[in-house]
Amino acid sequence: MKIEAINFKDKFEKFSEQWSPRVIAEMNDYQFKLVKVESEFVWHDHPDTDEAFIVIEGVLIIEFRDGSVTLESGEMFVIPKGIEHKPSAEQECKILIIEPKGVINTGDVNSGLTAQNDVWI
Amino acid sequence: MKIEAINFKDKFEKFSEQWSPRVIAEMNDYQFKLVKVESEFVWHDHPDTDEAFIVIEGVLIIEFRDGSVTLESGEMFVIPKGIEHKPSAEQECKILIIEPKGVINTGDVNSGLTAQNDVWI
Repeated sequence: MKIEAINFKDKFEKFSEQWSPRVIAEMNDYQFKLVKVESEFVWHDHPDTDEAFIVIEGVLIIEFRDGSVTLESGEMFVIPKGIEHKPSAEQECKILIIEPKGVINTGDVNSGLTAQNDVWI
Repeated sequence: MKIEAINFKDKFEKFSEQWSPRVIAEMNDYQFKLVKVESEFVWHDHPDTDEAFIVIEGVLIIEFRDGSVTLESGEMFVIPKGIEHKPSAEQECKILIIEPKGVINTGDVNSGLTAQNDVWI
């Protein structure tokens, strides 16, 4: 076991690509992923799993077909499985996503924004 | 689905008991729990699961039999299953724990610090 704190700020300084999740930790078969987001993502859902978002810095908007939620630093939201959503951010926003290992960021939607999985920093 | 941000600060204002986890969200069969901690907890482990700690405010020390890690706000650590650990904090520290539903805070150790499970705020 590596006995070392995982510092979000330090990890965010290690990459600049947006919509490109970086794994920082695993808990059982779940992963903690840092993501920098800006502008609009694609509508998608994850049919097999819920997905948790925690905003570390900035403002994240998550649109649903019947509403939206705005998350600021120190706030979180869990998107239930199968619910279509579209994240967006007017300015770059830094978020922590927690979800099972292997979840594709765009769900079943093929998009230029579909990111490589399991990239650690 | 309740479309509302979960704000850590607001939730922490709703209780004052220390070492007494409050559930704020569920993701599949996992729970997000806020805990206020101060002074020393008991040595224990969780034989069946890893456990993730994120420090929201303050400084948390987690001792292991062969070392320790100090976590400040914006830092996290995942304790592997079966690893004995003892959290402590010199001053009150506010943390977010993520672990499967049903995990007992003191593991298999019976203690005055064993908390009721599944208490939502």
